[in-house]
Amino acid sequence: MTALSLSRRSVVAILGALPVISGSCLWSRVAFAQSTTPGTPLPSWSDGAIKQSILDFVTAVTREGSSDFVPPAERVATFDNDGTLWVEHPMYTQLVFALDRVKALAPQHPEWKDAQPFKAALEGDMKTLAASGERGLVALIMATHAGMSTSEFEKIVLEWITSARDPRWKRPYTELVYLPMVELLGFLRANGFQTFIVSGGGIEFMRPWTERIYGVPPDQVVGSSIKTKFEMRDGKPELLRLPEIDFIDDGPGKPVGINEHIGRRPIAAFGNSDGDLEMLQWATMAKGRRLGLIVHHTDGEREYSYDRDTKFGRLDKALDAAPSNGWSVASIKNDWKRVFSFQ
Amino acid sequence: MTALSLSRRSVVAILGALPVISGSCLWSRVAFAQSTTPGTPLPSWSDGAIKQSILDFVTAVTREGSSDFVPPAERVATFDNDGTLWVEHPMYTQLVFALDRVKALAPQHPEWKDAQPFKAALEGDMKTLAASGERGLVALIMATHAGMSTSEFEKIVLEWITSARDPRWKRPYTELVYLPMVELLGFLRANGFQTFIVSGGGIEFMRPWTERIYGVPPDQVVGSSIKTKFEMRDGKPELLRLPEIDFIDDGPGKPVGINEHIGRRPIAAFGNSDGDLEMLQWATMAKGRRLGLIVHHTDGEREYSYDRDTKFGRLDKALDAAPSNGWSVASIKNDWKRVFSFQ
Repeated sequence: MTALSLSRRSVVAILGALPVISGSCLWSRVAFAQSTTPGTPLPSWSDGAIKQSILDFVTAVTREGSSDFVPPAERVATFDNDGTLWVEHPMYTQLVFALDRVKALAPQHPEWKDAQPFKAALEGDMKTLAASGERGLVALIMATHAGMSTSEFEKIVLEWITSARDPRWKRPYTELVYLPMVELLGFLRANGFQTFIVSGGGIEFMRPWTERIYGVPPDQVVGSSIKTKFEMRDGKPELLRLPEIDFIDDGPGKPVGINEHIGRRPIAAFGNSDGDLEMLQWATMAKGRRLGLIVHHTDGEREYSYDRDTKFGRLDKALDAAPSNGWSVASIKNDWKRVFSFQ
Repeated sequence: MTALSLSRRSVVAILGALPVISGSCLWSRVAFAQSTTPGTPLPSWSDGAIKQSILDFVTAVTREGSSDFVPPAERVATFDNDGTLWVEHPMYTQLVFALDRVKALAPQHPEWKDAQPFKAALEGDMKTLAASGERGLVALIMATHAGMSTSEFEKIVLEWITSARDPRWKRPYTELVYLPMVELLGFLRANGFQTFIVSGGGIEFMRPWTERIYGVPPDQVVGSSIKTKFEMRDGKPELLRLPEIDFIDDGPGKPVGINEHIGRRPIAAFGNSDGDLEMLQWATMAKGRRLGLIVHHTDGEREYSYDRDTKFGRLDKALDAAPSNGWSVASIKNDWKRVFSFQ
């Protein structure tokens, strides 16, 4: 499948807004359960400089009396999602969702058979879809992510994420989360951190499943959003999802989203692409002990291998900026003993 | 002082954006300390139907096995700030702040002596200021709340809120918080609730002091905001506050802000004006046990007496809607034994 030639900002940005998690969902909790296993921390990380940089940081900021000590309320860590916590190749999972939605909605839209970018989406013609550019993509997202209430959209996401399978491993996308990173989330929380997701992906595309999969509740998810509007419908209050971009939580938008949602500056940040550059700068270029870490996709066998030349998750400027900023660069091939819980 | 003739939405809306709380602030913790005193809950509330409605609700949703039981993660309560948690007469505290800022900045702006609405603000001419309308007010807010970094604005707010005194009681504004409501915040948290502030006021005007005064951390404060922009300044990352409205967290904006920040629907909401109507509807018009409560300003001696005819905190439609929705209406005169911790 040819990757779409679209910038990270245009792709994800747009996809926002979901509500309330409740009750019982059925997906696997394998990965999350692993993270809470007592014993040696970070068992899926190989011993070495990268793992040590994490352990040293956590020890320093949690040791009372240390000059690096940070009180628990200020132990804020932010994590990118696509490519940092779960797989983003061969394309963002939310884009797969959008394409599946176009197919599901096509019977109600006979006009899509002759109108781009819908025709290309329906025919799986990724080249033409890519050629439709940001404008085409926005049309695709608005047609699939807006026009319903927030609770209706939540149901749609839950049904899809429970039933969809990725083409390579034939597993639910929620199993394509990186075991070492899930361990890291749990390890930080066990040390008094609050772990926030700060993703270019749609906030309401993530919230229905982040608590089950990552242990991150909805109010600790920051993402891109579309506008919503309150209205009374048949005497009941609803939030209607509008076909209009509200906020793009990517690149320089990430510190803005962090400030708006969290209101504190993180002391640790984890990303994998240039879309995380400003978040890494915001978290680490300040007084006191800080940790910045980049996940480097170096393992084409167990996962995917890409950095400077990919369409999804390009890592170029942030990789160049890592040494002078003291950011750890974790190579999946060398620093992770296991990638997924099922491997 | 004549109240300004401006809608709630226009007044508050505009005032957003502050960051990181750290270290040691010096204000009184009297009110907050009271809220954590063990013993009979809600000691400053008079016995009666209103207090009982709160106690019954909390008992119902926290009793395991009860059909009304709500797991802790879903025990979300939202509180308006102005007029619900602290005093909003004779004008919103943030407006006092803005007027004080105009005076402080006047030496750098000699042109303000002849330009409205600044001339009126400098001369204390509230009638002319009110006549300048929303446009004048926006100009006032943008001149005082934008053009600096988020950390600079935080410092400005902290300095002001520590030193300013209200004209009636000659006390810091942070002492003009309602003791019964601070007790209620603490009581709900002791019962596993998360207590969010959802205010028309500026999110960054509130965050520097809400944790100390209410026990509400910055990530649990939802409010109006102006846009911010990430930039590197002398090699350091900064968030610059721009003179442009981002979000108005009032009226129908409150459910939108709740969804964006919290991602769960509240099961309890507390307000005092028509600006809280939609939040009360959003929280209570849903399945399961819910609590809606309106603070009714009925005590001109101990505080202020106003409802349908005031410029700040008009309570009209929401008061009419209370009986049919089963919302409790707490009369300050009858339902609160004490109003402030210093009385």
